[in-house]
Amino acid sequence: MTHRVHIPDLIARKRDGLEHSRAELEALVLGYTRGEVPDYQISAWLMAIYLRGMTPREVADLTLVMAGSGEQFDLSSLEHTVDKHSTGGVGDKTSLILTPMLAALGLTVAKMSGRGLAHTGGTIDKLESIPGWSGELSDAAFLKQAREIGLALVGQSKDLAPADGLLYALRDVTATVACLPLIASSIMSKKLASGAQTIVLDVKVGAGAFMKTVDDGLDLARAMVDIGTHAGRRVRAVLTDMDAPLGHLAGNSLEVQEAVATLRGQGPEDLTGLCVALAVEALSAHGEDPVQAEARARRTLTDGSALAKLRAFVAAQGGDPSYIDEPDKLDVAPGRAEVLAESGGFVQGVDALAVGQAVLVLGGGRARKNEPIDHGVGVELVKKPGEAVRAGEVLARLYHRDGRGLDTALTLLRSGLQVGAGRPEVPALILGRVQ
Amino acid sequence: MTHRVHIPDLIARKRDGLEHSRAELEALVLGYTRGEVPDYQISAWLMAIYLRGMTPREVADLTLVMAGSGEQFDLSSLEHTVDKHSTGGVGDKTSLILTPMLAALGLTVAKMSGRGLAHTGGTIDKLESIPGWSGELSDAAFLKQAREIGLALVGQSKDLAPADGLLYALRDVTATVACLPLIASSIMSKKLASGAQTIVLDVKVGAGAFMKTVDDGLDLARAMVDIGTHAGRRVRAVLTDMDAPLGHLAGNSLEVQEAVATLRGQGPEDLTGLCVALAVEALSAHGEDPVQAEARARRTLTDGSALAKLRAFVAAQGGDPSYIDEPDKLDVAPGRAEVLAESGGFVQGVDALAVGQAVLVLGGGRARKNEPIDHGVGVELVKKPGEAVRAGEVLARLYHRDGRGLDTALTLLRSGLQVGAGRPEVPALILGRVQ
Repeated sequence: MTHRVHIPDLIARKRDGLEHSRAELEALVLGYTRGEVPDYQISAWLMAIYLRGMTPREVADLTLVMAGSGEQFDLSSLEHTVDKHSTGGVGDKTSLILTPMLAALGLTVAKMSGRGLAHTGGTIDKLESIPGWSGELSDAAFLKQAREIGLALVGQSKDLAPADGLLYALRDVTATVACLPLIASSIMSKKLASGAQTIVLDVKVGAGAFMKTVDDGLDLARAMVDIGTHAGRRVRAVLTDMDAPLGHLAGNSLEVQEAVATLRGQGPEDLTGLCVALAVEALSAHGEDPVQAEARARRTLTDGSALAKLRAFVAAQGGDPSYIDEPDKLDVAPGRAEVLAESGGFVQGVDALAVGQAVLVLGGGRARKNEPIDHGVGVELVKKPGEAVRAGEVLARLYHRDGRGLDTALTLLRSGLQVGAGRPEVPALILGRVQ
Repeated sequence: MTHRVHIPDLIARKRDGLEHSRAELEALVLGYTRGEVPDYQISAWLMAIYLRGMTPREVADLTLVMAGSGEQFDLSSLEHTVDKHSTGGVGDKTSLILTPMLAALGLTVAKMSGRGLAHTGGTIDKLESIPGWSGELSDAAFLKQAREIGLALVGQSKDLAPADGLLYALRDVTATVACLPLIASSIMSKKLASGAQTIVLDVKVGAGAFMKTVDDGLDLARAMVDIGTHAGRRVRAVLTDMDAPLGHLAGNSLEVQEAVATLRGQGPEDLTGLCVALAVEALSAHGEDPVQAEARARRTLTDGSALAKLRAFVAAQGGDPSYIDEPDKLDVAPGRAEVLAESGGFVQGVDALAVGQAVLVLGGGRARKNEPIDHGVGVELVKKPGEAVRAGEVLARLYHRDGRGLDTALTLLRSGLQVGAGRPEVPALILGRVQ
């Protein structure tokens, strides 16, 4: 900043519904990140944004300012870089399957991934259930591996978009979380700072997701695609239903097993369908015809090419690739317990949040940062929504370690799995797309 | 509070335009005053109030909560207690005249008064130009004097409505000052805590005032009267023009001299008129017929009864009453300078703010708390708006001490006194009233 700005004047502009310039957004956001603008001014400004909104141009500039508030990953030495982001889901092992598919399709995935917190397991946690695998790589090794294999995955070591973390913490305690421009800029600032040229977004919609309706989901998807386009990236978004978890398994080792099965062409239909759909978005963002793209994407699951990429990737990051060939060797907790149907009928619904919390209390997730987790525990959904069930049949199976958290997990699942008389209408997994 | 409240939930209620309960306002305002609720939550809440507003019931409860946030003056042992508040003005020596008038009319004024800051001189500062007079009294002496004389005036020693000071400081830096419910509750919280049963409000309107238009002034007056009525007080408000200063003199000793002249029935018409109007409001709040009230109020200025009250009051608080009988004895700075009309015509306007700032730079006000001030300096407005003037005639006279601040004061006054060709329309002093 070469001249001083008066922060209350900038707050007043948003309060009065005016549009901020890029320089004004820099004064507010970078000033806050540097500790020069106090939190009580930023929280008043955030409330003004909540109530007055932002123009698309303004949101895009806000996102670029946030993305530029810290380090930015330089992937310019790589070709066809693709990143994928999901707005959160339970049992979402999509990244484990999609990223080797994309590599097999000739694209480059050089991705930073977070550890999981609460009921959303992180991709890094899942991969760490493979003995030897590590998410720590030097920048040079990371770029070299991405260039050679087309797939490299590291834990979030860099301070990407620190403004986002600061703003989010303040929004969380000032009732300004549920605000579209702020949600969209928060997600996209990290993605822009992560450096990929193409970004595929999986926007979850449903009772268990942040966006409750398809309309809200479409609005968020549109806002994020506009931000990325404004920043010169190729961005595609699909809206997916998250009322029920994806696939049958939740828990770290269990999800790696299901991912390997899917890469062998033997995965559950919903999980396979979503991974193919996201791969098609990435390919069509690069100009490929969607019909041809879908055929190519499905072929990676039957010709072994995607599985070969996963094996090479695991080995390159220190993991024992024999666990990919024989996933049954992965540590799965020996304890078993079952949730039985009390009456016959159809599975009406599976509460994804209840499943996620059950995995958490069994020890498979962490309530606080840096807590150790048990990779072997988890939940198997034997019956999914819409399936017929007889009284006494198994609805779900729990994998526990010495009974830890078992009673709570059973209670959660019993209330989260509803059986009723009529066959319910099961929503399509893919509810819409935005480009 | 017997149960815990979640502050973000309360912020969200106001964000969504809902009405707060009294208990919610207590959790927010008293929590903030005790240091338990952080400023960044309160500033987000204040912005939500700014943009969503408050219902009259809500504003009244907010004010009562603020009034109860600290000490409250107990005047219940006194009869017919009256307080007066002005929303700010230059050369406003009204309190010096009105309070002895009210005492002479049989009412009781037991009033706390602030010192002046910046261009608004405080009543305590003005009275301190009388040798010996002190604004420091014990509670017992204060109440005894009010009971015996009907008039006692102390400096702001008690911590009245501390929530107001804290909230105001936060509003000042978060663009949430210009918000009617917050302005009204801020003023009225101090008045309610000050204990008087009847409150007469002088709401200033004009270019130099906070409220620029009569409509805005009426809205503020209505909000304040509603708050007081809700709290069981009798409240009246008059709207007065403050484009030009009241009377001819600005500066501490000079204003005491003008006040004494007015109490002798020889005051300027505007100042006399306003004091009579405010006294009529106080009397009619007690049920007196306005026509009879006006006659009685005017009589106190001609029969010496109000002047006798001022003399008794000054003596009771240690002042030398001979200065009331011979106000020319008051210390007036010996230096003189004049602003002359460059051309003939009519005085178009006098910028009240420029006059106030001229007094400040001459040494008669303070830029920081606790700065000493020079009681003898000031400005005499020889010609007032609407008066005819010939080229070379004196428009204003400055009373300075050894030239201190004189150049700046002259510059301020030259630009603040406009002479033009046509006779301007001079607005009525009293623009409206609310009860």
